[in-house]
Amino acid sequence: MLENLLANLPLDTSKEHFEDLLSAKDVRIERIVSYGQTSPDSFWYDQDEHEWVLVLSGCGTVEFKNGEKHSLECGDFLNIPAHTQHRVSHTATSEATVWLAIFYRD
Amino acid sequence: MLENLLANLPLDTSKEHFEDLLSAKDVRIERIVSYGQTSPDSFWYDQDEHEWVLVLSGCGTVEFKNGEKHSLECGDFLNIPAHTQHRVSHTATSEATVWLAIFYRD
Repeated sequence: MLENLLANLPLDTSKEHFEDLLSAKDVRIERIVSYGQTSPDSFWYDQDEHEWVLVLSGCGTVEFKNGEKHSLECGDFLNIPAHTQHRVSHTATSEATVWLAIFYRD
Repeated sequence: MLENLLANLPLDTSKEHFEDLLSAKDVRIERIVSYGQTSPDSFWYDQDEHEWVLVLSGCGTVEFKNGEKHSLECGDFLNIPAHTQHRVSHTATSEATVWLAIFYRD
C-alpha cells in the first residue's frame, strides 16, 4: 500500500512523534517528526543498533560526544554506528522536521 | 560523514544509476537515479529480498504482476515483499527521479 512520509503529520506540536513504518528481524524503519524538540541537556543516545538517518523536511542538528556536529536539511543523511553517543541539539521551530531513521544490526 | 541524496546526481541521463549507500549483513540501502528509464517490456523483478522504496524527487510508477499499479511522487513509499513480481513502468523524463531503496531479509 502506498503511503507518504510527509503526509498525515501529527497535529500535536508540543512533542516529538516516533512511528514505526516497518519492523523486521534485523531492520526497523521509523518516521520521526520534530517540532523544535531537542534531546534533553547532557543526554546522549547510546544505541545497540546502528542508525542511518535522513532528513526529508525541516532541519535538525545531530551532535556527537566527540564534538562533531552536523546540521541536516532535506536530503541529507548520516550513518551513526552503534554506541556512537549522540544527541539532537536543534530542530526547526517554524516547520516540522521529518526524519527517516533506519535501525539495523551487523 | 554527511552526504545528500539529491546532490551529485549522475550526469549521464542515458541510463539508470544504482549506488550502494550502505551495505550490512541483512540490509542494503541504495540510491537509484532514473532519467525516464523503465524496466524492459515484459520484464518482472523477482527478488529474494524485501524492498522498501521511497521516492525523493521526480516520479515513478511501480506495477505489480497482479495488476496493481502505484505512481510514486516525493515522499511516497511502498513495501515490496520478496518474490512479489514488479516492474517500473514509468519514470519522469523532465527531471531526475531519485529513489531510496532498502533491501532487507526477514
